[in-house]
Amino acid sequence: SCKIPHFASHQVGVAGCVLREDTKEVLVVQDRNRETSHMWKLPGGLSDPGEYFGETAVREVFEETGIQSEFQSILTIRQLHNYPGAFGKSDLYIVCRLRALGHVIDHCTEEIIGCKWMDVSELATSQSTSLISTHVARLVLYGFREGFDKVDIGMKELPAVFRNMTYKLYHRQIPDS
Amino acid sequence: SCKIPHFASHQVGVAGCVLREDTKEVLVVQDRNRETSHMWKLPGGLSDPGEYFGETAVREVFEETGIQSEFQSILTIRQLHNYPGAFGKSDLYIVCRLRALGHVIDHCTEEIIGCKWMDVSELATSQSTSLISTHVARLVLYGFREGFDKVDIGMKELPAVFRNMTYKLYHRQIPDS
Repeated sequence: SCKIPHFASHQVGVAGCVLREDTKEVLVVQDRNRETSHMWKLPGGLSDPGEYFGETAVREVFEETGIQSEFQSILTIRQLHNYPGAFGKSDLYIVCRLRALGHVIDHCTEEIIGCKWMDVSELATSQSTSLISTHVARLVLYGFREGFDKVDIGMKELPAVFRNMTYKLYHRQIPDS
Repeated sequence: SCKIPHFASHQVGVAGCVLREDTKEVLVVQDRNRETSHMWKLPGGLSDPGEYFGETAVREVFEETGIQSEFQSILTIRQLHNYPGAFGKSDLYIVCRLRALGHVIDHCTEEIIGCKWMDVSELATSQSTSLISTHVARLVLYGFREGFDKVDIGMKELPAVFRNMTYKLYHRQIPDS
């Protein structure tokens, strides 16, 4: 039986754009999916119940690649309707910028057939990647050049009006007024 | 039986922050909900299947207030887990900046008990609103002062890799390189 409320209309996938600021490299993987196995893409996966975007990204990156990382910001959000083969479903795909806390890769061989650090400039021009990765790479190159405050969508935690709950709010940072 | 795929984990609500740039006013409503009926809030509601954020915002604003508007950008995104009374559900609430195309209010009396144009500076300091509306009002005031390019999360439409589909990508605008 279905445990998900009927008004849950979107699945949420999150990718980690894990960066090494020392080498200007990004962590990329090749997955076992036959159609896209030649493509270098960002590690990621579906959110577990109760996870915030950054938590999903950090967890999925660690599970797939063995790399520990830290949430910094959201870089982009994709909204897509009617994924092939999933009638009526809509998909949100959130790309988080993560800071690498280590660089020794120990990737999950069940899910991933390749994993490496790639120059962000190579990802920006690669033909073996998706259009969204190209866009993310351009945002990152601009961030390296002009500062990530020029590309980040920031996050803050706020108290909810009911119980002792909190929520997370993502928007651009502005000066306190 | 459940028609929603099991991995659809989030409901998506969208609010419209409809602005009149001539008067620096924002469209606010009071809804019939007993607990929050004293609060001035942004019009909005749940997305229909296949709708993009901006489409939901424009539709809901028109249905509730009679005001026609045009999508400009995303201002903020809230992620909230375990809404009271809805076990396991997560909620995304997206606030879109909309440009008013008219200003004569004709509000839906079934859903809404009050509707008016309010100074954005009043919304920013009002005690009769939610914390998220306060944040949105601050972003808008900063946008009026410094330009909306300082607060907007922009949108572009891109081709998907399969069929003749497109998707929408939301991120900050950077110069073409």
